Amino acid sequence: MQSLQDKASEWSGVAAADAFAIDDVNIFESLGGTPQPFVDLSNNFYTRVYEDEEEWFREIFAGSKKEDAIQNQYEFLIQRMGGPPLFSQRRGHPALIGRHRPFLVTHRAAERWLHHMQQALDATESIDVDSKTKMTNFFRHTAYFIVAGNEMTRQQGHGVACKHATSKPAE
Amino acid sequence: MQSLQDKASEWSGVAAADAFAIDDVNIFESLGGTPQPFVDLSNNFYTRVYEDEEEWFREIFAGSKKEDAIQNQYEFLIQRMGGPPLFSQRRGHPALIGRHRPFLVTHRAAERWLHHMQQALDATESIDVDSKTKMTNFFRHTAYFIVAGNEMTRQQGHGVACKHATSKPAE
Repeated sequence: MQSLQDKASEWSGVAAADAFAIDDVNIFESLGGTPQPFVDLSNNFYTRVYEDEEEWFREIFAGSKKEDAIQNQYEFLIQRMGGPPLFSQRRGHPALIGRHRPFLVTHRAAERWLHHMQQALDATESIDVDSKTKMTNFFRHTAYFIVAGNEMTRQQGHGVACKHATSKPAE
Repeated sequence: MQSLQDKASEWSGVAAADAFAIDDVNIFESLGGTPQPFVDLSNNFYTRVYEDEEEWFREIFAGSKKEDAIQNQYEFLIQRMGGPPLFSQRRGHPALIGRHRPFLVTHRAAERWLHHMQQALDATESIDVDSKTKMTNFFRHTAYFIVAGNEMTRQQGHGVACKHATSKPAE
């Protein structure tokens, strides 16, 4: 069975080594060690998303407040790119597949997400070109990792998952 | 609705700040900057798990080879505790909820897991007392975070999840 990582690489066209080149340097520190570049990026991103002319994509986010979506994203990015673990302190583990489970994350949705993120990166002057390249590869691979994970959790359904239910929990 | 983080804290008895005190120092570096302490810990842990007298618990792991389980765990721990991102380079994002989705992670299973991990920590001399305390809090909170996530993904089922399926993906 093809792994989540293999599917993410194949579908995104980004090798795992390029996706996780974000870990070669501390991007948070190299951008000045402040939250601002990430706050800018997430503001730019979600402003586009919440105003997307494509209703089907905008609808995916309709259940969340824009300011919450922005904070969740920049806290995750700051933590993942070498800064303080703001996301985990407030919300726990990133759990990228679990937290995306309520949404149907298709290839088409991933491409729309990436389209807006590319535009948002282009508009964020506080992020240098080399960091933008690394972040683009990370985002592209991660988007398709989530597509693969979303597909996996839906395929499993309740039938397979419940085979362990015979183990008689305590109460 | 109570968040995953709140459930994890309530059920584990460990506040988020204590669980993520693992990030206050770089534990990987403070243990010598080598994989060995984590390899020792995971070996100690899975040797107990694969020989557990409780069949219902042992069965949860029956589909995986012991050496793979050991490697997955120590690579995750090394990455999460400040070392090189070995897990993501090989397998992608930790995705703790998604990767535990095939298993029924009950409160009882969490307690059994924690029982073996406590014994494994006690037996691992290459980890100092302060790091053991931090890791115990992290493990306890994380185990119940996964219980909460497991419950969430099972409750959602396919009915709720598919409400977005009306958005007509491209193919």
